[in-house]
Amino acid sequence: MSLTVVGSIAFDAVETPSGVRPRLLGGSAVHFSLASSFFAETRIVGPVGDDFGRDEFEVLHSRGVNTDDVERVPGGKTFFWSGRYERDFNVRHTLITELNVFETFEPKLSVQSRGADVLFLANIQPDLQRQVLEQCGRARFTALDSMNLWIDIAHESLVKTIRLVDCLIVNDSEIKQLTDEPNLVRAAQAVLELGPRVVVAKQGEYGAAMFTRDSFFALPAYPTPDVVDPTGAGDTFAGGFMGYIAAQREGELSDELLRRAMAHGTALASFNVEAFGTERIQALTGEEIGERVAALGRVTRFDADPAPLRG
Amino acid sequence: MSLTVVGSIAFDAVETPSGVRPRLLGGSAVHFSLASSFFAETRIVGPVGDDFGRDEFEVLHSRGVNTDDVERVPGGKTFFWSGRYERDFNVRHTLITELNVFETFEPKLSVQSRGADVLFLANIQPDLQRQVLEQCGRARFTALDSMNLWIDIAHESLVKTIRLVDCLIVNDSEIKQLTDEPNLVRAAQAVLELGPRVVVAKQGEYGAAMFTRDSFFALPAYPTPDVVDPTGAGDTFAGGFMGYIAAQREGELSDELLRRAMAHGTALASFNVEAFGTERIQALTGEEIGERVAALGRVTRFDADPAPLRG
Repeated sequence: MSLTVVGSIAFDAVETPSGVRPRLLGGSAVHFSLASSFFAETRIVGPVGDDFGRDEFEVLHSRGVNTDDVERVPGGKTFFWSGRYERDFNVRHTLITELNVFETFEPKLSVQSRGADVLFLANIQPDLQRQVLEQCGRARFTALDSMNLWIDIAHESLVKTIRLVDCLIVNDSEIKQLTDEPNLVRAAQAVLELGPRVVVAKQGEYGAAMFTRDSFFALPAYPTPDVVDPTGAGDTFAGGFMGYIAAQREGELSDELLRRAMAHGTALASFNVEAFGTERIQALTGEEIGERVAALGRVTRFDADPAPLRG
Repeated sequence: MSLTVVGSIAFDAVETPSGVRPRLLGGSAVHFSLASSFFAETRIVGPVGDDFGRDEFEVLHSRGVNTDDVERVPGGKTFFWSGRYERDFNVRHTLITELNVFETFEPKLSVQSRGADVLFLANIQPDLQRQVLEQCGRARFTALDSMNLWIDIAHESLVKTIRLVDCLIVNDSEIKQLTDEPNLVRAAQAVLELGPRVVVAKQGEYGAAMFTRDSFFALPAYPTPDVVDPTGAGDTFAGGFMGYIAAQREGELSDELLRRAMAHGTALASFNVEAFGTERIQALTGEEIGERVAALGRVTRFDADPAPLRG
């Protein structure tokens, strides 16, 4: 099935304990589409400025991502984000956010992008996410990401949008914040009651958990000693998850399929953090993905035979 | 195999969003021994005061815990801890800590307790933990818990003690703090290099991870919407983990055995939080444990078949 992602396309300047990079290809839709491209034909929708050139397009094209709906804004500058990570990568400082062309972005999808079977709305203003949903009437599976900013300043609009999608993919803290419910299980139940049939809680170094009406699934993150740059890990996870779903030709979304999608998202995310920006995913092979998914299967495997209980 | 645990025996006063309890049976060795008693003959070593009466002993005896080495200090008062949990159970405020008889505790083990095959040193001053280790020459598997306080004020002594045990079971943040290494994989490797052959990182609501020289295993916590009182969950986990190991009659500790021990610890901990103090574990049955371990097996299960990669 075809997949469309709408979100940011950016340049990132990143400083981590592993080094400094003043200009990396970034943005949620970029990280997402590079990951999903391993599984499904992907179209990326988002705005760029004059500074976004042939080299950047080439990264996307080399992974087969269709960029026909990348909107070039004449005279504009591409979204720029700059951040610094401490030795503990969980502590991140945003230094600069220049929205640039992203500030006035109004998604206009081509007929081809509107026709996607699977649609991912990366983290943008929830009104805009709803505009995209209205354009994509054919989509059979839709998901959205969001952030604490929209929960704070556009809560009502965000809830309205969440009611319209099949799946929410956000950080676990955001699920709790959104529903004002500190217990994740209850918070996820509250989201399921809004409408979505799948809720995915991203948990950073702890992995990810998935809630549906009748199933719970969770996977730890793949244990990597070599974290270089975690930027985009969440979007890469979502790209692997949604891409894997879009790769299925037909039929209902089974619990088993969703679980495998979680494993593929987790595997992709674990590669993403091993190098700066998109570098590791650009160099990734399908064989490596398969090996890591298999390794993840072994990480949690145990034999649940009855224990010798004393009673 | 027989199991001895050395640690605190306490009264707790706990306030959570679910209610207030002014006097609960508590303490790390109590939570541990009630959990381990489902699997192995357990002897508990720790001091109590005159206020520790027949009812408290009866809780331990009803689960078959041997209390011969519980030291009654005439004229003394039992260790008392009081704390309050916020709506988000991850935020805990300690209100009162009265060490009482625990302040001058010097573990004196009987011949029977010294002869344990499996020994758990709950969180006490690391010099005292080493004293116990010296008394227990026969133990075939030893583990210890600790806390940030000892990492801060008795780092050298703690490291000396860790070198002597087979297994470290602490919170993941403590492994990072102990080794001054923010990446958990590297931090656990650093502990393995000190001597232990197993490192278990307790991760609260995210579950637990286990590192050995050639294997990594992790399990999410069992997803419970009904958290009433998380006090003692970590000790209950350790009790399930160590008890399961002690239940094995012989032979080497296989990776498969350690994984099943992790699952049993995780299951026990998930029950512990469902009621105040020791109430839930007191009412627990072996059948319920088996069901929850099986449920945990399903939580992380997926089919790692090769994905349909586009390459």
